[in-house]
Formats: sequence, structure tokens, C-alpha cells
Amino acid sequence: MDIGFIGLGNMGRGMAANLLRTGHRLTVYNRSPGRAEDLIGQGAIAADSVAEAADADVVFTMLADDPAVEDVSLGAGGLVASLRPGATHVSSSTISVALSERLAAAHAAAGQRYAAAPVFGRPDAAAAAKLFVVAAGGPQVLEPLLPLFAAIGLRTFVVSEQPHTANLVKLSGNFLIASVIESVGEAVALVAKAGVDRSQYVDILTSTLFAAPAYQTYGGLIARQEFEPAGFAARLGLKDVRLVLAAAEQLQVPLPVASLLRDRLLTLVATGGGDLDWSALATLADRDAGAGSDHPA
Amino acid sequence: MDIGFIGLGNMGRGMAANLLRTGHRLTVYNRSPGRAEDLIGQGAIAADSVAEAADADVVFTMLADDPAVEDVSLGAGGLVASLRPGATHVSSSTISVALSERLAAAHAAAGQRYAAAPVFGRPDAAAAAKLFVVAAGGPQVLEPLLPLFAAIGLRTFVVSEQPHTANLVKLSGNFLIASVIESVGEAVALVAKAGVDRSQYVDILTSTLFAAPAYQTYGGLIARQEFEPAGFAARLGLKDVRLVLAAAEQLQVPLPVASLLRDRLLTLVATGGGDLDWSALATLADRDAGAGSDHPA
Amino acid sequence: MDIGFIGLGNMGRGMAANLLRTGHRLTVYNRSPGRAEDLIGQGAIAADSVAEAADADVVFTMLADDPAVEDVSLGAGGLVASLRPGATHVSSSTISVALSERLAAAHAAAGQRYAAAPVFGRPDAAAAAKLFVVAAGGPQVLEPLLPLFAAIGLRTFVVSEQPHTANLVKLSGNFLIASVIESVGEAVALVAKAGVDRSQYVDILTSTLFAAPAYQTYGGLIARQEFEPAGFAARLGLKDVRLVLAAAEQLQVPLPVASLLRDRLLTLVATGGGDLDWSALATLADRDAGAGSDHPA
Amino acid sequence: MDIGFIGLGNMGRGMAANLLRTGHRLTVYNRSPGRAEDLIGQGAIAADSVAEAADADVVFTMLADDPAVEDVSLGAGGLVASLRPGATHVSSSTISVALSERLAAAHAAAGQRYAAAPVFGRPDAAAAAKLFVVAAGGPQVLEPLLPLFAAIGLRTFVVSEQPHTANLVKLSGNFLIASVIESVGEAVALVAKAGVDRSQYVDILTSTLFAAPAYQTYGGLIARQEFEPAGFAARLGLKDVRLVLAAAEQLQVPLPVASLLRDRLLTLVATGGGDLDWSALATLADRDAGAGSDHPA
Repeated sequence: MDIGFIGLGNMGRGMAANLLRTGHRLTVYNRSPGRAEDLIGQGAIAADSVAEAADADVVFTMLADDPAVEDVSLGAGGLVASLRPGATHVSSSTISVALSERLAAAHAAAGQRYAAAPVFGRPDAAAAAKLFVVAAGGPQVLEPLLPLFAAIGLRTFVVSEQPHTANLVKLSGNFLIASVIESVGEAVALVAKAGVDRSQYVDILTSTLFAAPAYQTYGGLIARQEFEPAGFAARLGLKDVRLVLAAAEQLQVPLPVASLLRDRLLTLVATGGGDLDWSALATLADRDAGAGSDHPA
Repeated sequence: MDIGFIGLGNMGRGMAANLLRTGHRLTVYNRSPGRAEDLIGQGAIAADSVAEAADADVVFTMLADDPAVEDVSLGAGGLVASLRPGATHVSSSTISVALSERLAAAHAAAGQRYAAAPVFGRPDAAAAAKLFVVAAGGPQVLEPLLPLFAAIGLRTFVVSEQPHTANLVKLSGNFLIASVIESVGEAVALVAKAGVDRSQYVDILTSTLFAAPAYQTYGGLIARQEFEPAGFAARLGLKDVRLVLAAAEQLQVPLPVASLLRDRLLTLVATGGGDLDWSALATLADRDAGAGSDHPA
Repeated sequence: MDIGFIGLGNMGRGMAANLLRTGHRLTVYNRSPGRAEDLIGQGAIAADSVAEAADADVVFTMLADDPAVEDVSLGAGGLVASLRPGATHVSSSTISVALSERLAAAHAAAGQRYAAAPVFGRPDAAAAAKLFVVAAGGPQVLEPLLPLFAAIGLRTFVVSEQPHTANLVKLSGNFLIASVIESVGEAVALVAKAGVDRSQYVDILTSTLFAAPAYQTYGGLIARQEFEPAGFAARLGLKDVRLVLAAAEQLQVPLPVASLLRDRLLTLVATGGGDLDWSALATLADRDAGAGSDHPA
Repeated sequence: MDIGFIGLGNMGRGMAANLLRTGHRLTVYNRSPGRAEDLIGQGAIAADSVAEAADADVVFTMLADDPAVEDVSLGAGGLVASLRPGATHVSSSTISVALSERLAAAHAAAGQRYAAAPVFGRPDAAAAAKLFVVAAGGPQVLEPLLPLFAAIGLRTFVVSEQPHTANLVKLSGNFLIASVIESVGEAVALVAKAGVDRSQYVDILTSTLFAAPAYQTYGGLIARQEFEPAGFAARLGLKDVRLVLAAAEQLQVPLPVASLLRDRLLTLVATGGGDLDWSALATLADRDAGAGSDHPA
């Protein structure tokens, strides 16, 4: 099987490196140059264009956002224009449900296959092949992909035959992380104003009912008020909450917590915190409590 | 050391049994009779009144709510009236911050000691001595209590010298659990309407970023729509969210997520779900999405 | 008919003066002295105690808040202790539904009558006998009071036989005013950030669909950012929204807008704006939009 | 001056008829036929296409929504393609800020003029020339239009030189109406559960601080629970709140009340009430209070 891989950011490089270990021929492409060197050293082939990377049985895309995926997939010289009939586009980016639906339709119309396989995990998990892969697509499309997913992740979850449902699950996960940040931020502001130590409080939470990575990672950042550099910037968090709300409106599912998160993230961005880590949401709880913080937000 | 224990509900019985294993003399009391038999069989002494149980060096209370604790502590023949000077009242109930402050003042005025030591954990954890104890009080008050806390729990967190801060931490924990229920309920309603299986979705969450007891317990109940019998009834959840909001208002800390939770829990109670488990909050997200559910709420 | 009047603040003085014009004997009392002089000059009799003012057929109370009314009514030497059997206490203060229920029960137990008659209108309307009286109580209790209400107001609305319902209607009115302030504040922040003049915008609103006193008064204050001196302080607004939420929780009626208003008013108070006019809520919308304002809030 | 008028719905017909009275030549067009007869009887000329109606000095559009305006303006044979250089497009529809910005740019690029002039008022006000016109555009563009606005309305407000600001003001007005509906709906649910008569309560509101058309119209519908036929359907209300939130997000202005309204309208639509009048929002407050209503929502 020949594999193409487009998008060599922090996540994509780790995923591509692990795909390389499967022994399949791997052609890689990144719009800005200089990201492929390590992979080439490990045996990958460099492509000079999307079309060149698309000369494969399966092409992964792992890009920043909707416009990037739209450009690579639906633009001139993009995947829909380049993929051979029967070849598969595996979209691993965190994109909107609506774009995933458009991609499914465009690839089908071109006689190509499409699957969505967004992942949970941060760059270190991508490098260590410890991602969780949430996949959706037709059974015949997914079946040959499963060994590839196994190569990049700890576990694969096949959620339905409709590719866009995987994107919805991924977005909902980011919604839940934002909920954790906001609720922990409020709780920390509360107990801190009563004189309880922030770090000890987060330690209590993560030693007991909330002993989960989301609470450990974000609770730690909140306790240490460590919002720079951003692991995931507030303006990206706002984008994802916006995407989950858009998908939910399409499905007619009100999400009051997501609406609240949208307003809070928008407040953070509007008051100068767009480039901070999205855990800086917690500064708003302190601010509204009249508890000073050194931060712009 | 002589120990008294008042309140032999599902939690209290387990805690008392573990205190008994320390070898100290233990006198137990429960308002409604017939709850002490097992303990007596294990060597506890039955008291016929609060005052009788109060004839000890340390008296624990583990009761349902503010009125019960108020009655036992501040009422006629209560702890403040009965405890000997220098003896300690350890309040483990989930009560309001305001009542904890009143208790601290009343015991101090009577020359008695007071500590708050609410616990995280359900009845099975109480029986297995696997509670998490959140303690607050003066160092000299707490020092002799630490071995007792070790006998009932896995770990003790001393949060400050002000007893009421432990109650605040406990209430904040219940607020965070309610946040988990609401946000997971919204997310499940969303993905379920798109055709994703509820149980598989919760399995994804709890296998990845949300591998914590709170998500496992409540996510499972939500996926199975298993809201009866109640592990913790919605009307008690409403009470605790009300208490956290009252404490937060006193401290002037706005908690927008808690306000939303209060409205949702009140909706659940007003529409007939007060005796369901508080995870039945999730039925509201389905209902508002127009997705039928058999449930009264 | 002999009338007593307790509470000679800005509202009470105007109401008492208008009652005096009915020709009935009027005895007035105020806790802090020096507020009765004008009224005495017009023929009122000064009382030295609540009990002395209570020596009447009908006694009005017009006080600041629950504690003041509780003290005057239920305290030692208060109305319940002093009123003659069959005499009527007319409570015009903005108090909680719960206190109004307690007063009804206490007066009934003492063989006295009780009506609630809170008013809409500001001090100038009280002076000009242009209040709107919202009355509730038994028909036989209210019937002889109607000429008195006519003397102080433009119009009387009898809402039910249960006195506390009049208090609920009054509190709900304050909730609706706060809703106007918050929503107009948000709208002004929005259009102002787009370059529309604040005053012209409010002029458009109040010339068209929103040509009502609430929009004119509060829209004007918001447009001019004129939050001092307070016509009605934010901390009092917070109190009233808290009372309406408490009454609504008792009746099991979720009020999501009121919850939001509570958080916003609490934010205003916590960040130093408690003594500003409650229309200063509008500063929060500007602040969250990153639009500078000179104000502490 | 030759005038074109496109869009002969309930609003457009009244506006066109009043423009006819100015004595200018008026050419009218509506996509579905049969709406122009009355106007032709009064002297208007029927056009068979947008392009034909566009053969004028000033062309008004009064259409249902963004797609309709986009089609008529930017589509093949649309206004941008047809209007003569220097001619003016007056957009009176309630459209998004983003579309208004696109129209301004497109007309400018084509050497044409553009003004936004949305209106406040319902069909009866349109027929009676009692609309309020909110206009924005360059002074030279607006100056010749003012007599036309005077012909259709009671008063014209010029808000800025940027056309899209008029659209923002219009959308913000609909946001404020929705706020009135929601807050009055909550208040009515509250007092009704306490036994106060709905109609009398609304009468109190509209006799006092809330004596404005928005409260009279919508308060009346809520009190009478008269949600069909829809004066303005809930799904259109949802659309407008969505547009105001989109504009606000672009400007980075959080609007928490609008977010709440969006969720409530989405709930109403998702539970089968999309074709009811948007005042049916009030049924949700009753429903959440456990107070039965016959309505689907």
C-alpha cells in the first residue's frame, strides 16, 4: 500500500513517522518547506505538491483548520482533483462537521473514498504512537485502514459509517475539555478567595474523583497560572467551541454549557488573551470575583 | 481516646466501623434506632442520646444536611451543650459554609474544639476505608485526629486552619461533579442525535482524556439512562449547588456554570425528577433537543 | 380611621404626606429622628416608638429591607406585639415572599389583619401621589384600604387574596428592570463598538418599540455612562434579584435570565461597583468586549 | 427620480404603495407573481425581472433573508450586474452585517451606490407609513433618499456612514425584543404559578414601567398564550439572534443574554415550535416549571 501524508505540523510529523514504521511506502508533503527532513532521513519520500502526495492508495491529511483542509482537498490541484479512483482520503484534522460532509460528497462524486479519523492526544502522544483514533466511514473503506490506525495510536474507535460523526465526536471532546477548564477555573477562584492553596486544591481533585488527564493537565496550568506559551491557544478553543455549536445547531441540539464557554472564550479573546493557552479562561473567574491577577485578561 | 459517633447512615456506619478498628472506645448514636446493631456486635457502645455520645474526647457527626447537624449540635441537649471543655467535634457532613462558621463560633464560645472533615467517596469507599478526607482546623485540634482520619480514608488533605474551608472544598467538589454530569449529558445528546452509540461514546471519553471516576460513574449512568434508584438524588444535588452558590455569593465569587446547573437541577426537580439520580440532568439535554425519552423529566 | 405610618425615607415621607390629605389622623414613626418634621407641620402626630404608632386602625410600613421589616414587625415591642385585634398592618416595603408569608401567619395568630401593598414608582412619584399600588390580601381586609391606596397612587392592582403574591409581583418587576438594563447594556456595547453613537441609539430605541419609562430612564443612564449618584444601588439590585430567585426556587420556577442577572450584579459588586447605580451593569458588557471604560467596574 | 422596488411581501407592498404617493415613477418586481396587482392599479409599473426593476435611479430591496438578498443582488442578472453607474441600491431587508458589507463592496466596485435602510415596524405600520427607518451610508448617498424615507416612515435615524451599522442596529432591536419575550415569559410563569392572573399581570406591567409597544404586543400574546398564527415565526427569530451573535463575534462583543436566547429559541424549534410565533418562548418557562401547557413546545 502506498501512503501519502499531508501536513507535517507537531502532530503530523509524529503520525507520519509511525506510519513509516509499517513498512509501506510513504510520501509526505507540507506547504511550508523544511518540515520533512527527519522523515526523509527515515525513508519517506518528499512530494513537491499535493498532487504528488496524492499518488497513493491512502492519503492522510492533518492540517490546522477548515480553510487549510478545504484548500488541500477541494482547491485547484487538490485531493479531489488528484486522487485516483478508489483511493482513500483519511482526514485526521479537527474540522467542522459541515466540511466533513462536503468532503464525503465531493470524494464520492469523484469515485474516491473518504474516511474521517481525527485523533485525541497531544504531540508527545503522536510521537509515541499513543493517540486515540476516532474513525468513521464505510466498513470497506475502514477495514484496510485499521492497521494504519493501530500504527499511530493506542486504540481505534469506529463510531459510525458516516464520516462526519467522527468529527463531531472529536469536537465534542474539545467542548468537554473547555468545560473542565471553566468549571475548575470557577472552583479554584472560589476556594482560593477563601484562602485555600490553589495547587493543593487541584491536587485534591486529581487525587480523587477527577484523576483524569484533562484535570491533571489543565488543573495544573490553572493552579500555576501558567498560560504561556499556549499548548492550545484560546482563539483556537473559541473556534472549536464555535464549530461544535454550529454542528449542534444543525442537529437542533441546544448546548447551554457550550454557549457559556463561547461567551467566556470570546471575552478572553476580546480582552487580549487570544494567544494565551485556553486554560487562561480561569483568569476570568478570578477577575469577576475582584481577585487581582497580573494577566492582561 | 474515647470517641463518639453520631449519624449511622450508609456513610456513617462504614466510618464508625473503621474507627472501631483503631482500638479506641467508640460510643455510637443514631436518631432512628436499629442502625447500630452491627457496630455493637463489633464492640461499639450504644448511646441513647446525643449527650451520652458526647461524653468523649472526640465526637464525629455524619448527618444528612444542615438542619440535622444544627439540631444535633446547637439544639437542646446538643453537642455544644454537652461536650466537655477541650473535647473536639469533628463535622464530616456535607453542610453549608455558614453553618460550619456558626459551629466554630459556638464551640469556641463553649471552650470546645471544632474541626471540619468532610469526605469524598460513596458508601462502598466508606466501608473499605478508602475515603478522601478534607480536613480543616487549628493544627493542635487536627494533630490528634490524623490517625483517626487515616483509619477511615486513603488520604487526608489539610486545607487550612479555618474549618469552613473544608466544607467549601467539599461543596466545590459536588459542583464539579454536577458540571461533569451536565456537560457529558449535553455531549451525549449531541452525538446520539447524530447516530453515535451512547455507550460507545462514553467508553471513548473514559478511555482517553476523561479516565476518571466521575466520568466513569456518571457517564455510565447517562449512557444506560439508568436514573433509578438514585445514588444521589437530584433534589440533594440541587441543595448542594444552592449551598455552593450561597457560599460563593458570601465570598463574592460569581460562578456562571453553577448558576446554570442550579437552573437545570431546579428544572429536573420541578418536572418531577427530584427523586431520580442527579445524572438524570442528562434527560434535559435530550428533551430540549426534541429527542424523546420515556422519562417524566 | 386612625392611621400609623412607620418608615419615613424618601418614599415613605411622600406616601405619608398624601395619606395626611385624606383627613384621617396620622401618627408617624421613624427609627432615626428628624425625618418627621415636615409631616408634623402638616398635622401628623409624632410617635416615639413602634408601639405608639401601632395604636391605630391601619399601620403602614415602608422600610428598607427584610431585617428592618422583621425587626419592626416581629421584634420586641413590634407590630405583632402591639397592634390591637382587628387592626391592619399594610406592608409596602419591597421584601421577600418568605417574610411576607411569616408576617401573614404571625398577624393571623395574633388576631390582626395583614395586607401587602408594595408600590412601583420612585420618590418623585410618591410625592406626587402617582405610585402604582400592587395590593394583595383578603377582600375584607383590602376594602377599607382602597381609598388610602387611591390617596397615594394613580392606580391600584389587587392581585390575589394571598398577601405574598403582591411582593412576588413587585420583585418580578425589579427583575424585569434588571433585564432591561442588562440587555440594553449588551446592545449598546455592541453598536458602540461598531461606531454608532450611544445616545442616538438609545434615542432610536425609546422612540420606537421601547418607548417605556424603564428604557428611557435606564437607557439614558447607560448612554451617558452616568452611574453616580445611584438612584438604586447595585447591591440593592443584587438583593432583589436574589429575593426573586429565592421565591422562584420555592415555587420551583427556573428563571435563567434572573440567574444571569445575579451573576452579573455579583460581578459588579465584587469588582467594586456595589454603590454605583445598578445601570452600571452595562459597564460589564463594555469591559468583556475589551472596550475601555474609566470605571472601577 | 425613477424608483425600483423588489420584494412585495407584507412589508414591501405597504412601503411601495407609500413610495408611489411621492409621484415618482415606480417599477415593482416580485419573484412569485400576483403580488403586484394592487400597486399596478395605483400606477406602479410591473417588471418581469430584477434587471428591469433595476433600470432606475434608486432601487429598494425588501426581502426575506440573506439568501434572497444575495440572489437578487449578487446573482446572475442581479442588481450589481444591472444597476447603472451612480444608481443607488437601498437595502431595507433584515440581513446579516456580513452580507451588508459584501454588498457595499460589490456596488462600490461596480461604480454604484449602496445604502442600508432597514425598518422597525410591522405590516400595518408599513401600510400606514409609520415605520421607523434606520439608515446608514455616505451623506451624498443618503441625502436624496431622505424624502423617500419620509414617505414610508414616521422618522428616519441616520446612524453612521457605514451601511452595515444600520443592519446591526436593526438586528440588535430584534435581540432586544427577544429579550423582552424571554424575560416577560419567565416573570409570567413565576407569578402564574403563585396564582396571579396572567392577563392582569401583563396589564400591571404595561400600565407602569413597561408601557411600550414591545411589552404590549408580546405581553399580550404571552398572557393569552396565543402563538398561532405567527406574526414572526420562532425559526426566523432564531435566525436573527444567530445573525446578531455572528456580528457580535466578528466585533468581539460577548452577549450573554443573546446566547441564552439562542439556546431557548433553538429548544423551541427543536421541540416542534419553529412555526409558532416567537413569543411561544414563554411556553418553555412554564414547561421548565412543571406547569402544564397544551402546546407542543
